[in-house]
Amino acid sequence: MGRTSTARTRLLAATGELMRSHGYNSLGIAEICAHAEVKKGSFYHFFESKQALTVEVVDAYWQGERSCWVGELSVPAPALDRLRRLLDATAAVQRRMKEDSGTVDGCLLGNLALELSTREPDIQARLKEIFDEQIQLVANVLTDAAAEGAIPTDRASLSTARALVAQLEGMVLFAKLKNDPAVLDDLWPHTLMLLGA
Amino acid sequence: MGRTSTARTRLLAATGELMRSHGYNSLGIAEICAHAEVKKGSFYHFFESKQALTVEVVDAYWQGERSCWVGELSVPAPALDRLRRLLDATAAVQRRMKEDSGTVDGCLLGNLALELSTREPDIQARLKEIFDEQIQLVANVLTDAAAEGAIPTDRASLSTARALVAQLEGMVLFAKLKNDPAVLDDLWPHTLMLLGA
Repeated sequence: MGRTSTARTRLLAATGELMRSHGYNSLGIAEICAHAEVKKGSFYHFFESKQALTVEVVDAYWQGERSCWVGELSVPAPALDRLRRLLDATAAVQRRMKEDSGTVDGCLLGNLALELSTREPDIQARLKEIFDEQIQLVANVLTDAAAEGAIPTDRASLSTARALVAQLEGMVLFAKLKNDPAVLDDLWPHTLMLLGA
Repeated sequence: MGRTSTARTRLLAATGELMRSHGYNSLGIAEICAHAEVKKGSFYHFFESKQALTVEVVDAYWQGERSCWVGELSVPAPALDRLRRLLDATAAVQRRMKEDSGTVDGCLLGNLALELSTREPDIQARLKEIFDEQIQLVANVLTDAAAEGAIPTDRASLSTARALVAQLEGMVLFAKLKNDPAVLDDLWPHTLMLLGA
């Protein structure tokens, strides 16, 4: 196995790393290739376009994040404890990022959603699916919480789950803007309010 | 007064219009000048850089939005009614945008906050000040609401006001991603939950 066989993986990893801080439009293929130590000429052997690469990067990012979400939401514990573990894990990611690189880069999915939207329909479609999946995962734990009597039954809805994920994305926006992960310390009390718990 | 005397204003207006849908990095000075009908050579007569122009665009955007915020929050009505008017007005802006251009472009301030952050410190600093001002405006109306007995006293805080603006930004993100302003219809019931009203 030569280096070429890992070039595709390296391109994906380099883009994932750079795109969270640089965004989509300011990140060029030359910079990605340099970071991945892949010759620029080889790029199009692996990916049709920066768009196509980005859809794969978004998928890989969510696969990683999804295992964390599913992991935290599956521990044998009351539903609200599981939800809290998920929010704590999300805040911990931003804290580690700040410790490692000095900046809170936020959520790649939220960053791309606001930077691109309708101008990159393939990426937008994938982001939409992923956020729908996040909302469904949260809705499932809300259903459990309602069954346990921890929240009112009418809070166990997709609408409340969406509000909760929106709250998370909005607070991550402020953490990124202030470059301060401590902004996320308030997430849990506000989540409890939203849930009427 | 020739056209030159309005060139600066036209550059600001063109950038404000284009940046909400295009973002910062994908928008070039040539495109701004073409849209503003200003010769590219004149750009640097008016603005030192795209960064400097963007800080002014952000200011102008917030000045317009701020009059709307202060207007809605100052009508002679109970505090929660005033807050609701503010959220309704925000949703109405996104609905009009969809009707006019076919796309929900979201909030210029939130878009730039997630696209740029620490890589453009001057723009980031201005965005931070503006969001702090938004949060303070909301906190003031929460203080009134608590004084009227409409919400618990402990909800009249900067922390709750920040959660409310975060909720708004997160829901605007989903409205932009789905290109559907109806996502914002849920804002009010979730706001009431957050406020324990």
